[in-house]
Amino acid sequence: MPAGPFRGSAAITHDWKHFDFTVADGVATVTFNRPDKLNPLTFESYADLRDLLYELPQRGDTRVLVIRGKGTAFCAGGDVNEIIGELITMKARDLMAFTKMTGDVIRAMRECPIPIISGIQGIAAGAGAVIALASDFRVVTESGRFAFLFTKVGLSGGDMGAAYLLPRAVGAARATELLMLGDTIDAPTAEKYGLVSRLVPDDGLDEGVAALARRLADGPTLAYAQTKALITRELDMPLGASMELDAMTQALLMTTEDHAEFHASFNDKRKPRWTGR
Amino acid sequence: MPAGPFRGSAAITHDWKHFDFTVADGVATVTFNRPDKLNPLTFESYADLRDLLYELPQRGDTRVLVIRGKGTAFCAGGDVNEIIGELITMKARDLMAFTKMTGDVIRAMRECPIPIISGIQGIAAGAGAVIALASDFRVVTESGRFAFLFTKVGLSGGDMGAAYLLPRAVGAARATELLMLGDTIDAPTAEKYGLVSRLVPDDGLDEGVAALARRLADGPTLAYAQTKALITRELDMPLGASMELDAMTQALLMTTEDHAEFHASFNDKRKPRWTGR
Amino acid sequence: MPAGPFRGSAAITHDWKHFDFTVADGVATVTFNRPDKLNPLTFESYADLRDLLYELPQRGDTRVLVIRGKGTAFCAGGDVNEIIGELITMKARDLMAFTKMTGDVIRAMRECPIPIISGIQGIAAGAGAVIALASDFRVVTESGRFAFLFTKVGLSGGDMGAAYLLPRAVGAARATELLMLGDTIDAPTAEKYGLVSRLVPDDGLDEGVAALARRLADGPTLAYAQTKALITRELDMPLGASMELDAMTQALLMTTEDHAEFHASFNDKRKPRWTGR
Repeated sequence: MPAGPFRGSAAITHDWKHFDFTVADGVATVTFNRPDKLNPLTFESYADLRDLLYELPQRGDTRVLVIRGKGTAFCAGGDVNEIIGELITMKARDLMAFTKMTGDVIRAMRECPIPIISGIQGIAAGAGAVIALASDFRVVTESGRFAFLFTKVGLSGGDMGAAYLLPRAVGAARATELLMLGDTIDAPTAEKYGLVSRLVPDDGLDEGVAALARRLADGPTLAYAQTKALITRELDMPLGASMELDAMTQALLMTTEDHAEFHASFNDKRKPRWTGR
Repeated sequence: MPAGPFRGSAAITHDWKHFDFTVADGVATVTFNRPDKLNPLTFESYADLRDLLYELPQRGDTRVLVIRGKGTAFCAGGDVNEIIGELITMKARDLMAFTKMTGDVIRAMRECPIPIISGIQGIAAGAGAVIALASDFRVVTESGRFAFLFTKVGLSGGDMGAAYLLPRAVGAARATELLMLGDTIDAPTAEKYGLVSRLVPDDGLDEGVAALARRLADGPTLAYAQTKALITRELDMPLGASMELDAMTQALLMTTEDHAEFHASFNDKRKPRWTGR
Repeated sequence: MPAGPFRGSAAITHDWKHFDFTVADGVATVTFNRPDKLNPLTFESYADLRDLLYELPQRGDTRVLVIRGKGTAFCAGGDVNEIIGELITMKARDLMAFTKMTGDVIRAMRECPIPIISGIQGIAAGAGAVIALASDFRVVTESGRFAFLFTKVGLSGGDMGAAYLLPRAVGAARATELLMLGDTIDAPTAEKYGLVSRLVPDDGLDEGVAALARRLADGPTLAYAQTKALITRELDMPLGASMELDAMTQALLMTTEDHAEFHASFNDKRKPRWTGR
């Protein structure tokens, strides 16, 4: 993931064709925009997500990413005819290119230094459920639902890293049930399992997402970025190495303006003004 | 774990002497059958479990394995006099052969491509609790109980992989309590911790197990096998490698008859007929 | 971590200056003793904790360690002026020495063969929350609270191994929320997440801690030590190697006096007399 301040020749994409994209006051928002079909992912929208996640830290105007769906659903996953209908005619090279691309989207979400919030109403199914899972926060309405439905279409439940991420999020026992059977769970069940960061009323999603996004965008972004990086990396690291990484990271962050600003604001009895430096 | 279609010279065992064994319509059932002693495991029944799990994928007639206990208990673990009484007289070679055999049973359960359901009434204690834990699904009656009681007999709580499996199933904090103290937990507590896949009334165990077994036996067995394999293996793999494994697995499964059958059945508005190919 | 029976030249420290320290009937107790400031940690108390945890298994008089706070709080973490005020003036060498020392305390808690109980009333914040997390058991009053507040002071949420330990204790989803946002959670929320081993009334903490400490001190200490070691180590080990470690450990423990004592006491219908041998 390229670091923000170092820019080479690559252009920034201004026109994302396969979802709505806005940036306002540090908050970037991707909105899947085919509500009539429950916001399915297509070959093109996967490619756009992959490329956007690569560019995002380089834009310099984004401190949080929000992912939303238009209408009554978050995202119903890959469309049965637009995607599956094509896949069953493809051969190894193209199938591999497709499954690697979808995995790249999820890996980029985990490796992106910017916190990601999914705002979920209605169904988050298939790839939509994995995108929600790979987010740092899930704000979910009371009627939201999750379905890791891959076995129901004859595929492996471990799609796009779900067999890596879900056992680490909710434990291997519950993950086995969700991934093997592919059944839909409602928001209270997801909340009980630990998948819901904020449960909101059905008419409170915009507000709930905006409040969390605002807080993250106004907070100490370097501290958030490193917290996310350590959570992501230490899932793959042993105890001793994790301690070493923590010690070096923290020693470095202790030299930042944000840490000094905390100390100054504490003694001045005022709120800190974070700059992410 | 040998693949199903490739058979060499090894015979299939027809007579399992140390538990009841039946296969009906794709569902194999092991029933511990010494209800007067709460179905203790013996040296011989461990050996039979080890060998059965090795043979099972080669039989060609089994798509699900159910493990049950006769009478009022699931399995009370190793019998105090039949097993512990012998162990305290053994020397290193035989002790190692015993503990490796019991570990081999659990490892074979996790590596077996066939989904495993434990149907649990009454107590699942010691090795019985670990067998339940290593299953993919636990159907548990309201009066079911679990006891990882190893420290109570002066041994390590990490018996047969419990110190690997339980923290990954319910989190390291709750696992520490269960394994260090060895206390018995009831079904509602186990459900809260995530150990219960299906909580059923005391008179609903046969029905609950049969319904889940039927569903798995009638489903896309290759997709189930690979989902189980990915969950098992990716617990030991980092993010990037897991993504790569997912991508290759899914690209391969996209070429299967079952995936094409899903697509055809969806457009025909009928249920898919899965063949596991 | 040096083994108990093997002593070299190093002296045992008799006077711990930066917390209260007592040993009674196998139970060592560390009490943070600056209740007016909510028991902050200082450079000196970290150093004392590090050294005590190294010495503890060599004392020969300790079978359990209890960590407590005097007054209304468990431990509010590093003091803002005594610690943070100093850190923001330090350079790399001293910052690294500090963050490595704090990490060494937590690693020593996990690698110490003696079970550790934190008894928590009021707030456990910052380093106080990580010390609670790294304990084997947390006895928590109904009004207890936890705050992994590192991002609120502009630092990484992964302080002292929190980004390694917390996802493994409560799942990566809930850990992300706690570590990224740094908000305070109350005891019922901590209990729901799995962080609370024993929830006790506000006036029941002494009794709750004493009962658990007594039980552990009177129990099979070698079995407890190895259970803790396997839980700690197998978080970093794959399935096959964990099975092998379990098998060797258990075969060895089957030769102990404690295991034979269990068998004898069972047949004599009396309580076992554990000796930790």
